[in-house]
Amino acid sequence: MSDAPCPAETGRPAAEAAKADRLRADVLVEALPYIKNYQGSTVVIKYGGHAMIDERLRDGFAQDVALLRLVGFKPVVVHGGGPQIDALLKRLNIDFRFVEGQRFTDEVTMEAVEMVLSGRVGQDIVSRITRAGAGAVGLTGKDAGLIKAARKRLSRPSLEADAPDEIVDIGLVGEPVAINVELIRHLSAGGFVPVISPVGADEAGTTYNINADAVAAAVAASLSAARLILLTDVTGVLDHEGRLIERLAEAQLNELKRAGHVTGGMLPKLDCCLTAVKGGCRAASIVDGREPHAVLLELFTDKGSGTEVTLA
Amino acid sequence: MSDAPCPAETGRPAAEAAKADRLRADVLVEALPYIKNYQGSTVVIKYGGHAMIDERLRDGFAQDVALLRLVGFKPVVVHGGGPQIDALLKRLNIDFRFVEGQRFTDEVTMEAVEMVLSGRVGQDIVSRITRAGAGAVGLTGKDAGLIKAARKRLSRPSLEADAPDEIVDIGLVGEPVAINVELIRHLSAGGFVPVISPVGADEAGTTYNINADAVAAAVAASLSAARLILLTDVTGVLDHEGRLIERLAEAQLNELKRAGHVTGGMLPKLDCCLTAVKGGCRAASIVDGREPHAVLLELFTDKGSGTEVTLA
Amino acid sequence: MSDAPCPAETGRPAAEAAKADRLRADVLVEALPYIKNYQGSTVVIKYGGHAMIDERLRDGFAQDVALLRLVGFKPVVVHGGGPQIDALLKRLNIDFRFVEGQRFTDEVTMEAVEMVLSGRVGQDIVSRITRAGAGAVGLTGKDAGLIKAARKRLSRPSLEADAPDEIVDIGLVGEPVAINVELIRHLSAGGFVPVISPVGADEAGTTYNINADAVAAAVAASLSAARLILLTDVTGVLDHEGRLIERLAEAQLNELKRAGHVTGGMLPKLDCCLTAVKGGCRAASIVDGREPHAVLLELFTDKGSGTEVTLA
Amino acid sequence: MSDAPCPAETGRPAAEAAKADRLRADVLVEALPYIKNYQGSTVVIKYGGHAMIDERLRDGFAQDVALLRLVGFKPVVVHGGGPQIDALLKRLNIDFRFVEGQRFTDEVTMEAVEMVLSGRVGQDIVSRITRAGAGAVGLTGKDAGLIKAARKRLSRPSLEADAPDEIVDIGLVGEPVAINVELIRHLSAGGFVPVISPVGADEAGTTYNINADAVAAAVAASLSAARLILLTDVTGVLDHEGRLIERLAEAQLNELKRAGHVTGGMLPKLDCCLTAVKGGCRAASIVDGREPHAVLLELFTDKGSGTEVTLA
Amino acid sequence: MSDAPCPAETGRPAAEAAKADRLRADVLVEALPYIKNYQGSTVVIKYGGHAMIDERLRDGFAQDVALLRLVGFKPVVVHGGGPQIDALLKRLNIDFRFVEGQRFTDEVTMEAVEMVLSGRVGQDIVSRITRAGAGAVGLTGKDAGLIKAARKRLSRPSLEADAPDEIVDIGLVGEPVAINVELIRHLSAGGFVPVISPVGADEAGTTYNINADAVAAAVAASLSAARLILLTDVTGVLDHEGRLIERLAEAQLNELKRAGHVTGGMLPKLDCCLTAVKGGCRAASIVDGREPHAVLLELFTDKGSGTEVTLA
Amino acid sequence: MSDAPCPAETGRPAAEAAKADRLRADVLVEALPYIKNYQGSTVVIKYGGHAMIDERLRDGFAQDVALLRLVGFKPVVVHGGGPQIDALLKRLNIDFRFVEGQRFTDEVTMEAVEMVLSGRVGQDIVSRITRAGAGAVGLTGKDAGLIKAARKRLSRPSLEADAPDEIVDIGLVGEPVAINVELIRHLSAGGFVPVISPVGADEAGTTYNINADAVAAAVAASLSAARLILLTDVTGVLDHEGRLIERLAEAQLNELKRAGHVTGGMLPKLDCCLTAVKGGCRAASIVDGREPHAVLLELFTDKGSGTEVTLA
Repeated sequence: MSDAPCPAETGRPAAEAAKADRLRADVLVEALPYIKNYQGSTVVIKYGGHAMIDERLRDGFAQDVALLRLVGFKPVVVHGGGPQIDALLKRLNIDFRFVEGQRFTDEVTMEAVEMVLSGRVGQDIVSRITRAGAGAVGLTGKDAGLIKAARKRLSRPSLEADAPDEIVDIGLVGEPVAINVELIRHLSAGGFVPVISPVGADEAGTTYNINADAVAAAVAASLSAARLILLTDVTGVLDHEGRLIERLAEAQLNELKRAGHVTGGMLPKLDCCLTAVKGGCRAASIVDGREPHAVLLELFTDKGSGTEVTLA
Repeated sequence: MSDAPCPAETGRPAAEAAKADRLRADVLVEALPYIKNYQGSTVVIKYGGHAMIDERLRDGFAQDVALLRLVGFKPVVVHGGGPQIDALLKRLNIDFRFVEGQRFTDEVTMEAVEMVLSGRVGQDIVSRITRAGAGAVGLTGKDAGLIKAARKRLSRPSLEADAPDEIVDIGLVGEPVAINVELIRHLSAGGFVPVISPVGADEAGTTYNINADAVAAAVAASLSAARLILLTDVTGVLDHEGRLIERLAEAQLNELKRAGHVTGGMLPKLDCCLTAVKGGCRAASIVDGREPHAVLLELFTDKGSGTEVTLA
Repeated sequence: MSDAPCPAETGRPAAEAAKADRLRADVLVEALPYIKNYQGSTVVIKYGGHAMIDERLRDGFAQDVALLRLVGFKPVVVHGGGPQIDALLKRLNIDFRFVEGQRFTDEVTMEAVEMVLSGRVGQDIVSRITRAGAGAVGLTGKDAGLIKAARKRLSRPSLEADAPDEIVDIGLVGEPVAINVELIRHLSAGGFVPVISPVGADEAGTTYNINADAVAAAVAASLSAARLILLTDVTGVLDHEGRLIERLAEAQLNELKRAGHVTGGMLPKLDCCLTAVKGGCRAASIVDGREPHAVLLELFTDKGSGTEVTLA
Repeated sequence: MSDAPCPAETGRPAAEAAKADRLRADVLVEALPYIKNYQGSTVVIKYGGHAMIDERLRDGFAQDVALLRLVGFKPVVVHGGGPQIDALLKRLNIDFRFVEGQRFTDEVTMEAVEMVLSGRVGQDIVSRITRAGAGAVGLTGKDAGLIKAARKRLSRPSLEADAPDEIVDIGLVGEPVAINVELIRHLSAGGFVPVISPVGADEAGTTYNINADAVAAAVAASLSAARLILLTDVTGVLDHEGRLIERLAEAQLNELKRAGHVTGGMLPKLDCCLTAVKGGCRAASIVDGREPHAVLLELFTDKGSGTEVTLA
Repeated sequence: MSDAPCPAETGRPAAEAAKADRLRADVLVEALPYIKNYQGSTVVIKYGGHAMIDERLRDGFAQDVALLRLVGFKPVVVHGGGPQIDALLKRLNIDFRFVEGQRFTDEVTMEAVEMVLSGRVGQDIVSRITRAGAGAVGLTGKDAGLIKAARKRLSRPSLEADAPDEIVDIGLVGEPVAINVELIRHLSAGGFVPVISPVGADEAGTTYNINADAVAAAVAASLSAARLILLTDVTGVLDHEGRLIERLAEAQLNELKRAGHVTGGMLPKLDCCLTAVKGGCRAASIVDGREPHAVLLELFTDKGSGTEVTLA
Repeated sequence: MSDAPCPAETGRPAAEAAKADRLRADVLVEALPYIKNYQGSTVVIKYGGHAMIDERLRDGFAQDVALLRLVGFKPVVVHGGGPQIDALLKRLNIDFRFVEGQRFTDEVTMEAVEMVLSGRVGQDIVSRITRAGAGAVGLTGKDAGLIKAARKRLSRPSLEADAPDEIVDIGLVGEPVAINVELIRHLSAGGFVPVISPVGADEAGTTYNINADAVAAAVAASLSAARLILLTDVTGVLDHEGRLIERLAEAQLNELKRAGHVTGGMLPKLDCCLTAVKGGCRAASIVDGREPHAVLLELFTDKGSGTEVTLA
C-alpha cells in the first residue's frame, strides 16, 4: 500500500478503480492453469524481427521473459540480429551479399557478426531482462563449447545438363552439430535466463555464423523443451483463403510445400519447428512477434496468434 | 492453442479479442514487481467471515492461494468457523453462549468445535485449494504438536468496590503459547500449503478452542512471515470522517483506543496485527474479505483495500 | 542416572533390580535383527477395532508406532472408526443402516463420517503418537489429493431368474482409484508419521466414505511397503481344527473360500492383504489387535500372533 | 513369522510365551524416551578391562554398540589392550616394565603395541560389531591424522632436597594434542561405527602409545559428545561407607582426592571424565564393565551402575 | 599407453626418455603442496598486455587457467583489451584520445568498446580455455547485473590560482560500485571458469567502460579471493638499485610514492592490489605476464617473478 | 613467494632458475589432458614388492597417491607384505612354508599376518600418504564387512594314475567372494584414500589371508574402476626377443600361456588383470614398481613402462 491519495475521497474514480482491480484479479486467476502447467518447464524462444527493433516491443519481450522465469518457467532465449549486422558492416565499409538467402560470411564479416551479436545485441537483451527482474546471462556457442558447429554445405542444381549439383560457397556459415546443454541447465537451475547468440565453432576453433532459428530448434530438441516459439513478422501460416492455420501436422506441411503454397522465409522456419519436435521438443509454434507480449499471450491463453507444427 | 473457431473469420470480435488479450498481458506484466518482491516469502492469511461463506468468494480465495503458491510465495492459511460451529451445536442440541465475546467451551462443545473445524471447514478449504492447483494439507494444533496452548484466563473488574478482579470461567478456551514451526516449514518446503484449524493442546493433552486471529498472529510471528493478512467483513479502520486509515502506527492505534474510536471486534484484530509485527512478522494488515480476490489485490497492487498496522 | 534412592543400600531389591535390568538388556538386544531388517522400511498399519477402543491398548499402539519411527522404520497409519461414527449419528438423530455389510452413506451421513474420522478419531491417534515421542500428522484423502476415489458399485444376484445382477445403492461409499504418495513420502522423509482417515474424493469433488482396510492395502501397494498389518479382533485365520494358520498362500486361500471356510468380515480383509502383495507390498498379515503391543510383537518377534497372506 | 511349531497346539507354554512376549513389548516401549533423547547424539565409549576378555561380555558389548547405532545414536569406541600387548611382548621375548603406572615404550615395544592394538584387538572388536549388525571401521590415530600426539613428560619429585623435579623417561608414551574429527564425523554420518586404537603420531611421524582413557576423553570433548562412558572393572566410586557415589561434582572430587580417598587407577579415570566435560562433552561416567550389557543399561535406564562426574 | 615404437629397442633415447620421465614426475610431485594449499580457493587473474597478444603466451595462459580449474582451484579471469579497441576504432574511423591516461569514451566509442571486449577479446579467451580442457563462460558486468558501475569523476588542479579543482570530462568511463557475486559463485560451483569483460552499467542502464585492473580488484575483494594476480609487461616493482622488490607493505608503498619512485602505469596497479587486500582478498601481486606460464609459476613455486602488495 | 635471497642478484643461476621454471611449467601443462581424462575416476593400485621396501620409492609412492587424490582422481591402494610377514614370523619363532607358491597359513600364522599387514604395513602407508597431503585410512576386509572371503581350494594332479586330483591343504588362505564397496565409496566421496590390507573373513567369522593381487582385482572390478595397476618387480611381459609387450589381449595371453612363455609369478598377475577387466574395470596393467613414481608416469604419460591386459 502506497501513500497515494485515498480513492474513497473521490466519487467516480473509486468505483472505476475497483472495477479495474477486479479485472486485474480475474486475469491473474485465469493464468493459474497455464502457470501450473508449465512449472519447471523449459521454453525456448527465438527472438528476432520487428520485436527486436521496436523499442516498446523490446521492453515488452524482456518483461515477458522475466515473468516466465519468476512464475517458475525456465525460459531460454536465442536471438538473431540481421539489421544490426548490416549496420556495422556498412560502418566498417565491408561489402556484404546473400547467397540463396544466406549471408556470405568471410573472415572479416564473421568477426563483425560475432562482435555485434554477442557484444551488442545479446548484451542489450540481457540488460533489459535483468532490469525487468530476472538475471539474464549472454552466451555464444563458444562459451563452454555450447554449440559445436560444422560448415554448412549448400548445393544447387547445375545449370549444365547432367552435371552434378553445384556446391555454393557461402563461407563461414555453419549449422549446429551438437548442443552441450550442461551450461544452459546449470544456469537455468540457478535461476538465470540464458540468452544465446547464434555463433558456434568446430573442433579446430573455426567460428561460424549460424541461423538463429536452427540454433533455437537444436537447443529446444537437446533440452527436450516443453515449447519452442519462433517470433516472426507474420501472422502465421495462412491457408489459400487467407485464414490462419492453427495446427499443421507434418503430412499437411509436406503437402503445402509440394503445392508451393508455403514459400520464402516461412519454409525454413516450419522445418526448424519440425526438427525440434522430432528431436524431442514437445511443441513448436511460429508466432507473430509484432504483437505486444506475444510470448505471454501464446503461453497464457488457449488460443495463440500463430501456427503450431505437430508431428501428426 | 485450442481448436476453437478462428477469430480471424469474424470481423469485430477479433479486434475485441485482441484488445482483451492486450489488457490481459498488461495485467500480468504489472504483477512482475510484486511476484519478484515476494519470491520465497511466507504470507500468513487468516481466512474467515463472509469470504468463507459466499460460494464465489470461497473459490476465489482458493484460487488466490493456489496462485500465490505457484508463483513462488509460501502461503499459510489459518481459518475460523464460527457459523459452522453454531450450526453443528444446534443440530447436536448443545446450548452455547458467549462470555465477553468468547464462546464458552465445555467438553462436549470442544468436541464439536474440533470436529467441525478440522473435519469439515478445514477439509473444504483444502479441497478447493488443491483443486485450484496447489496441494493443500489440513492441520490442527495437535499435528506434530504444532500449537502448544494454555487455558486463557479472562478477568473482569469486580462489581463490588475494592474487590480484586473477578476470574471469568470460559471453559476450554486457550491461547497459543508456542508454535512448533518445523511441520509448517517442512510442508512449505515441499510445495504444500498448510491450512491450520485453530485448535491446540497443552502438555497434559487437554484440547483448547483458540481464536483464529490469535493463532494466525502467533504463526506469522514464529515464521517471521513477510505478511499477515486478516480477512474481515469491514473496509478497514475508518477515521472520524469515515475515511479509510491506510496505515496505523502503534502510537496512533493506542490513541484511537483511548479515544474509544476503535471498538468491538476490530480491537482484538488490531492487537493481533501488532503482536505479529512485534514478534517478527514484517507487515500485518486488516483486509476486507468481502471483496473478490481480496488477498491477490492486497499483495499484487500498490494500494490494498484495508489498514496496515505498523510499529512506527 | 536419577537421584532415586541408591539400591545398594537395600538387600534383596538390588539383586532383583539387577535381574530385571539384565532381562531388559536381553530383550533390547534380541530386537537387533528386526531393527536392522526394517531400517528405512515403510510399514502400513490399519488400526481399528478393539485396539482403538480400549484405553490401555490405545496408548500401547501409539507407543508402538512412535518406537517404530524412532528406531528407523517409516510407519503409516490408516484408521477406521465405525463405533465413533455410530455414536455421532445417534447424537445427530441420523438413522443409519448397512447394506451388504457396507454403511449406506447419504450426504448428511458423509458429513458426519468425515467430521468424526478426521476431526476426532484421527486427531486422537495423532495426539497419542505425538505425545509418545514421534510427530504424527493427520491426513484425509483430500489433503493434497492423497486418495482419488470412485463410487463403489455393489451388485447382487437378482431374485428373479435369468435377470441380470441387481445394482445396490449404497450411496457415497467409494473405493480408492489412485494414491498420490508424494505427500506421504514427504512427511515420512521429514520424520513425521502420517495418520490417514479413509475418506476420499473424485475429480468433481464428491466426498466418499471408503473402507479403511481397502485404503491401507492401496497405500501399502502404492508405497511398495515392506509390511501391511491389519489389526482385527480375532486371532487370525483358523483351520478346521481351530488352529491358527500362520501362512496362507493365494491358492490355499481360494480353496478355503470355495469350501466356505472363510466367511464374514475376514474375507474382505484377506482380499485386501492379497491386493496389497499383488500391488507391490512385500508382506501382509492379519494380526490380533486385542493383544497389547500387537504391532511391536508382530514386527519384533519371529512368530506373530496372526496370519500372513502370501502370493505363493 | 517363522515356520516354528505353532504354540497354539500346546497348552501351558503358549500362555507362558504370551507372558514373555508381553514383557518383551513392555521393555521395548520403556526404551522409547531414551531412544528419543539420544537420537543423533554421539556417545564415546572407552572399552577395556574384563569386558574385553570375557567371551560373553565381548559379544554383549558388540550387540550394545550395534543396537545404539541402529536406533539412531552415533557410537564411537576407543579401546585399550594391555593384556594382549603383554602377551605379544612375551612371545616376542621383549622385556617390558611400567614406570609410574605407564608402560615404558621403546621402539620395538611401540611396534608390537601398534600391531596388536590395531591389527588384532581393534580388528576383533570391528568384526563383532559388524556381525552384530552395524558396519564398524577400525582406526588408529594415524588414519587421516586423527590423533596428533606429543611425547608425554612425566616428572617426579627429586629424591635430593631442593633439587628440581626429575624427568622420568617412559619412552614413546604420548598424549593427545589435537583430534582431527573430520574422519570420525564422516564415518558416523555414513552410518559406520569408528573403533579407535589409542596410537598417535607427531608431525615428524614418530608413533606414540597413548592411554586409551585419555584418547576417549579427548575424542568426546572434540566431538562435543552427549556422553563419555569409561568401562572399568569396579562398581564406581564408593564413599567411605562403601556405598556407590552416583554423582561426583568437581569440587567434591577434589576433596576426595585431598583426603586420599580416591587412589590408584581410579584417579586418572576420574580426571579423564573431568577433562571431557570441561572440553564440551555433556556427561561422563565410570561404569562397571563386568556387568553384561553395561553400556545399554547405562544409556537405557534411569539409574546406571556407576559414577557420573559433573562440573558442579 | 600408445602404440608408439617401443623405446627398449633403441639404445640412448630410452635412457634419455627415462630421465625425462623422472624429471616430469619430480615436477608433478613438487606441485603437491601448492595444489593442496589452494584446493577450492578462488584466484582472480587480470589478463592483459603482452600475454594477450603473443600467440604462444595466449595458449599458455589458457592452459594455465584450465589446469588450475582441473586441480581444484576456482580461477576467475578479468581481461582488458586496449590494442583491440584501438584497432576497431580506427577501422570505424572513430577518433580516440586519452585524458589523464583514461580513454575518453563517448557513446559511439562505448559501443565499439563493448563489442570488441565482449564480442571478440572475451570470446577468444573463452575459446582457448575451453579447448584447453575447462569450460569457460564469457561475462560482462551487465550479465545478471554483475558489475554495478558509476560514472568516474576525474578532477585536476585548476591552472588558475586559488580556483577549485577542475572536473575533467572523460565521458562514459566508470568505476565499479558493487559486484553481484552470485553469478560468479554459481558458475565456479558448477565447474566453469568466468571470464569477465570490464564493462558495467548503472541503475539507469547507462553502460560504462571500466579499467580492468579496478574490476579485478573489486571482484577479488567481493569474492574474498585467495589471490589476485595482475599480469603486466614489467618485471614488478624495482628498488632504486634496480632489484625486484618481492614484498611491498602499505607503508613502504606510500613512502615510494612520496619519493616519486613509483610512477606511471605501475601506480594505479599497486593501488588496485592494495584495494583488493583491504577489501578481503588474501594476497595480491603484480606479475610479469611476458614470461610463459607466469600464472602457473606464480602459484606453483615458492618464488614468483613479481611484487606482492601486503597490508603490513 | 618466500623470503629466499633474490636470484636477480646473481648472474648465471637466475637464468638457470628461469629455465628450470619454464620446464616445470611445461611439465605441468603436459599433464592437463591426463588430469582431465581421469577426473573423478577410481584407480586401484596394488602396492608391493621393491616399491614397498626402498625408502625413497616408498615416499615417492605416497606422493603419487596424494597427488592423484588432490587433482581429482579417486585412488584406492591394496598392499601386500610378504617380507614383513616373514620377519615377524621369524621373531615369533613360527615356522613358515609355502605350498604351490602360497603361504601355508595356520591360526598362529594368520594372527601374525593380520597384525603385521594391518597394524604395521598398512599403517606405514597410511602415514606416508597422509603426510604427503591426502588423508588416508587403513582398512582390512573385516572393516564393515569389506571383503567376504572363502577358503581357497587348491588341488593338484594326483601322483597315482587315474586318481582324482589331490586337495592340497594350505590352511587359512582365502579368496575374495564379494566386495562390499559401500565403505570404499563413502571414504572416496569424503576425500579420503582407502588403503586395504588383504585379509578377509567368512560369515562364520573365520579370518583368511588373501593374495593382494586378487583383492585388488576384485576391488577394481566391483568399483568399475577406470584403472587397475599392479606394481611388480619386473619390466612387464617380454616377448621371446626380450622386448616389452605393451598390450596383451586375452587370446594372445592364452597362447603365451600354452606356449609356456609366461610362467612363475607373472601368470597369476596376468590372470588378475584379466579378472578385473572382465568384471568391469576399464583397463588393467602390470607396471614396474622399481621405477620412481611409476604410478604417476603410468597415468600421466602416453607410454607406460608395463604391459596392459585387454579383453580383445
